[in-house]
Amino acid sequence: MSIRVGIVGISGFGGGEAMRLIASHPSFELVYAAGESSAGSRLVDRFPGVPAKLAELVIEKWDPVTLPKLDVLFASLPTGASADALALVSRDVKIVDIGGDHRYVEGWAYGLADVWPARIEGQTRVANPGCFPAATITALAPLLAEKLIEPGNIVIDVKTGISGAGRGGDSKFGYAESNENLIPYGLLQHVHMPEIERTIERLSGGSAAGLVFTPHLVPMTRGILATIYCRGSATTGQCLEAARRFYAGRSFIRVTDKPPQTKWATGSNLAFVSYAADPARNLVIAMGVVDNLGKGAAGQAVQNANLICGLPETAGLDGAPVWP
Amino acid sequence: MSIRVGIVGISGFGGGEAMRLIASHPSFELVYAAGESSAGSRLVDRFPGVPAKLAELVIEKWDPVTLPKLDVLFASLPTGASADALALVSRDVKIVDIGGDHRYVEGWAYGLADVWPARIEGQTRVANPGCFPAATITALAPLLAEKLIEPGNIVIDVKTGISGAGRGGDSKFGYAESNENLIPYGLLQHVHMPEIERTIERLSGGSAAGLVFTPHLVPMTRGILATIYCRGSATTGQCLEAARRFYAGRSFIRVTDKPPQTKWATGSNLAFVSYAADPARNLVIAMGVVDNLGKGAAGQAVQNANLICGLPETAGLDGAPVWP
Amino acid sequence: MSIRVGIVGISGFGGGEAMRLIASHPSFELVYAAGESSAGSRLVDRFPGVPAKLAELVIEKWDPVTLPKLDVLFASLPTGASADALALVSRDVKIVDIGGDHRYVEGWAYGLADVWPARIEGQTRVANPGCFPAATITALAPLLAEKLIEPGNIVIDVKTGISGAGRGGDSKFGYAESNENLIPYGLLQHVHMPEIERTIERLSGGSAAGLVFTPHLVPMTRGILATIYCRGSATTGQCLEAARRFYAGRSFIRVTDKPPQTKWATGSNLAFVSYAADPARNLVIAMGVVDNLGKGAAGQAVQNANLICGLPETAGLDGAPVWP
Amino acid sequence: MSIRVGIVGISGFGGGEAMRLIASHPSFELVYAAGESSAGSRLVDRFPGVPAKLAELVIEKWDPVTLPKLDVLFASLPTGASADALALVSRDVKIVDIGGDHRYVEGWAYGLADVWPARIEGQTRVANPGCFPAATITALAPLLAEKLIEPGNIVIDVKTGISGAGRGGDSKFGYAESNENLIPYGLLQHVHMPEIERTIERLSGGSAAGLVFTPHLVPMTRGILATIYCRGSATTGQCLEAARRFYAGRSFIRVTDKPPQTKWATGSNLAFVSYAADPARNLVIAMGVVDNLGKGAAGQAVQNANLICGLPETAGLDGAPVWP
Repeated sequence: MSIRVGIVGISGFGGGEAMRLIASHPSFELVYAAGESSAGSRLVDRFPGVPAKLAELVIEKWDPVTLPKLDVLFASLPTGASADALALVSRDVKIVDIGGDHRYVEGWAYGLADVWPARIEGQTRVANPGCFPAATITALAPLLAEKLIEPGNIVIDVKTGISGAGRGGDSKFGYAESNENLIPYGLLQHVHMPEIERTIERLSGGSAAGLVFTPHLVPMTRGILATIYCRGSATTGQCLEAARRFYAGRSFIRVTDKPPQTKWATGSNLAFVSYAADPARNLVIAMGVVDNLGKGAAGQAVQNANLICGLPETAGLDGAPVWP
Repeated sequence: MSIRVGIVGISGFGGGEAMRLIASHPSFELVYAAGESSAGSRLVDRFPGVPAKLAELVIEKWDPVTLPKLDVLFASLPTGASADALALVSRDVKIVDIGGDHRYVEGWAYGLADVWPARIEGQTRVANPGCFPAATITALAPLLAEKLIEPGNIVIDVKTGISGAGRGGDSKFGYAESNENLIPYGLLQHVHMPEIERTIERLSGGSAAGLVFTPHLVPMTRGILATIYCRGSATTGQCLEAARRFYAGRSFIRVTDKPPQTKWATGSNLAFVSYAADPARNLVIAMGVVDNLGKGAAGQAVQNANLICGLPETAGLDGAPVWP
Repeated sequence: MSIRVGIVGISGFGGGEAMRLIASHPSFELVYAAGESSAGSRLVDRFPGVPAKLAELVIEKWDPVTLPKLDVLFASLPTGASADALALVSRDVKIVDIGGDHRYVEGWAYGLADVWPARIEGQTRVANPGCFPAATITALAPLLAEKLIEPGNIVIDVKTGISGAGRGGDSKFGYAESNENLIPYGLLQHVHMPEIERTIERLSGGSAAGLVFTPHLVPMTRGILATIYCRGSATTGQCLEAARRFYAGRSFIRVTDKPPQTKWATGSNLAFVSYAADPARNLVIAMGVVDNLGKGAAGQAVQNANLICGLPETAGLDGAPVWP
Repeated sequence: MSIRVGIVGISGFGGGEAMRLIASHPSFELVYAAGESSAGSRLVDRFPGVPAKLAELVIEKWDPVTLPKLDVLFASLPTGASADALALVSRDVKIVDIGGDHRYVEGWAYGLADVWPARIEGQTRVANPGCFPAATITALAPLLAEKLIEPGNIVIDVKTGISGAGRGGDSKFGYAESNENLIPYGLLQHVHMPEIERTIERLSGGSAAGLVFTPHLVPMTRGILATIYCRGSATTGQCLEAARRFYAGRSFIRVTDKPPQTKWATGSNLAFVSYAADPARNLVIAMGVVDNLGKGAAGQAVQNANLICGLPETAGLDGAPVWP
């Protein structure tokens, strides 16, 4: 029996990736797509390689009160654009919000599915973590849970591909300006900081007040690597073991001995975590890699939708990454 | 019931892509992987994101006479390396050769599946077309079949991503040398020319003696675009209609009004073809786009394997391209 | 004695490159910079690495009638934006127009300096060739001059880096959309076609009516390669010799035996030309490489300015290309 | 009067960049080039765009005892390859070693010219800093000199373009493997760590024992960004002022309010430094950007050669960066 799903924000990068994953999903059927600038186009006009079964679906003007009958709605809207609109959607429609408006908001589960799946199962409103938190927290969670690092003394240096900046006409992200360039931005004030702080505190029970978070734009399309500097006396082996214990039985987290590369995850819902520690310096380096559009957005959203629909969480998400 | 398949040349780009496609295939089960430099490693050592069910498969030293029980073998070996070895493989094992040694060789079907599927069904030895012929011939076939262009007066200007040069240590393909660079090579003597000539002649019944073929290396990983200059008096519309007729009912060919872009095909088995003609100049420009590792290699190979195994030709190949 | 120069369109790619070249020029002194969106900024705000002597120069709002005392003005404005404005500039100011409005316009010399330097010396109004014509004509001129090819049967397949599309906010040229992508565009109708046609006719004395011109966007910042298919019975050696004769004593044209790569020219005013011919097929392939912002824009403009100021044409242009 | 210079290691990236800079230098004349694999070639065979005056110079087999008469030798050899060989060079020849063998070695000045120019003037043997130390120390020096940060508690997260890995056949740095990828490596054991430690100690007078240093390979050709996390209570403004004081009168260091981008420095000998501090968290983030082949290698080497030859340190190094 197929589950009827819709996507709003289809022509953005996150919405497009959700479309790709849903097109191959064994239980989901895409019956509704909405956007702003793309309204009136067929899917094939926007995505020339879309599977034939979806080619003629017409993108509609987004209107939360006149939705067709849907089981699940994926929302991939710019920050600030979904809060009011999604409140108008019927409670009969489950929602996974890929955007930033409902993280740690009353009535919405925080969709960190690899860490807290039980908080998501059975819910009808789930807010996806941000892409940076996805890479960061996945690497930190085992260390925080086992108290191997100090929650109040964490430095996160994170690097992202440019699709993380979203689609659109900002010439800062033009090819000629961005290629062969590496750009730090948002120092000490990035919008993802409070979300990371709060999640560290929930995981550790301690204060994350000293958190440092520095994002960088890297000239590549997809991928996030978080290199995280922590204080603690565990060895590399103890960190790896902690992660293997913490993620035992989880499908999407790969604990690796070698430092993970962003291309390992491209096109998949996988996260890679690894560690390098030096007890003599009271130092633990944690590393997390995700595809910002996969585990950092649409992959995570499909996983959350699987959980709230009672499906296996890997449904539609078991493909290997694209390499090279 | 699962079909037991093997891959030789697993650590090359073509072999790796075959692995990715087989991992998601509904009927194929990968039970054997072989290589040279990678022998002794597990798949997960080479492909950190490989699905868990395949992670522990050990890559074996390639030996055609001691294969396990297999239904299909995918061979992705350097040109010159497969001719002798594959002759030793038991006739009980069907073979799809992604490499260049068996194209237009006695006893091997030429695996241009979108044009001549009936020549592949029921065979046990199929030679995949080269990546450049895949992009080129797909665009030309309808024009040749309907005699809209002169077969003896064709200029092919083809551009390929660098994975087409194969994996390995040639510093010519080092990142710093290749990035921000565009390199014409193999002028008037590329190894794919005779294959293209022969296929044009088979399609048209005429001589392709005047063929010109110029490849270029483009700083991107995947993708081929062939821009082909032909003589003929058809209009753009007539060319498009000819292609739509020719490929009616075919699953992987998309005939588009707009010039196709390589990224439309990334990660898929699709080919895009389009045309721009000017009867006043007796000119037809045909364009073909493929992913050189998809329709140009592993995707085409899986399609051919589906055909020789009596499966739907789209089995395992119906995913949307990866974008962006 | 220094020559006082100005740049209008300073914050575009062509204007910025002109600034870079002028900053190192032994005789030119930049005393005026104008723009639209950048007016009011200092040069260092737009170009953080600008030499200290220019850092504090304030970019002015472009106004052709209130210029300071200038000897030469470089204009790098969008097509359509310079025709009326430059007519208002005092005749005491020499002008080199990098933009497209004055090519083959009465009163303006056509600035193809490597072919017709004598037409530029002593002039006060020079229109730079377009970037595609620069790459194309440089390769064709010797063949046309010596009648080694038919002027009426030329197919130009040209590939350009993305800076050729200019700076600005068009999301088509966003990094995520352009990277790992190859895009044909402007088929049979590119704005540079008439200019190329006319120049071929001037060089050959024959009609260029059959001209075919197909541009492609390549995922790199700088560089143009023109691969040009011509009809003629000359050998490769005869073509190379013709080019060596034609460009004897010229400083910026390099005739090479090997197919030229775009990266050979990066950051320089060089053009590379090479040939591959097959008399048996009545075929000559001509290849031309330039940096679209060098010989294709600002380098050519400085060369033209040198000529009209009576300086050595290599002044400020003798640096080696940047590699890798 | 021209100064006769030679380069050994001419066909590597550092040696090639030295050639480019020397070709435009007002006082240096390149009279000798040596290499291994390239011996016997002319410069133009290796660098097709080399200025005409250098084109026919034949690359010789490197032999330290049969050098022609030279004033200065630039050595750009792999680590381990220069220690013994350079000891054989006549004391009449001044040497700048771009390679890694003579940093903090008796008899060799440490060529951190922007910080300690007086230690270089008048010397005959200078060892260039490594490319990572160049980016890192330039940003840290003012803070250490004014004791605004703790020398024993510094975390350096550094990102480099792939030319930093050197030229050569390692398939790890192949285009298809490196593009769209981000790779951490050398964790806790990079060869540049002791050099950075020692330089911090010399600058601060304190111990750098707690140093953490993590390099990452970024898919771009040139550029290094060091993001450095320090402990200290200074404000952002105090850090910027300290840097402006420290580098007052220095030509190549730009102190910027905005976080620096790697492309600001491409092709130049500039270094950009900036700071972001939060006294409430006892945190100072220092950032340093260089072109790894400019200030990180050949640009720095020319600056050092200028100093030991009694020339203005900016001779041949005053060009603007290449942008975009």
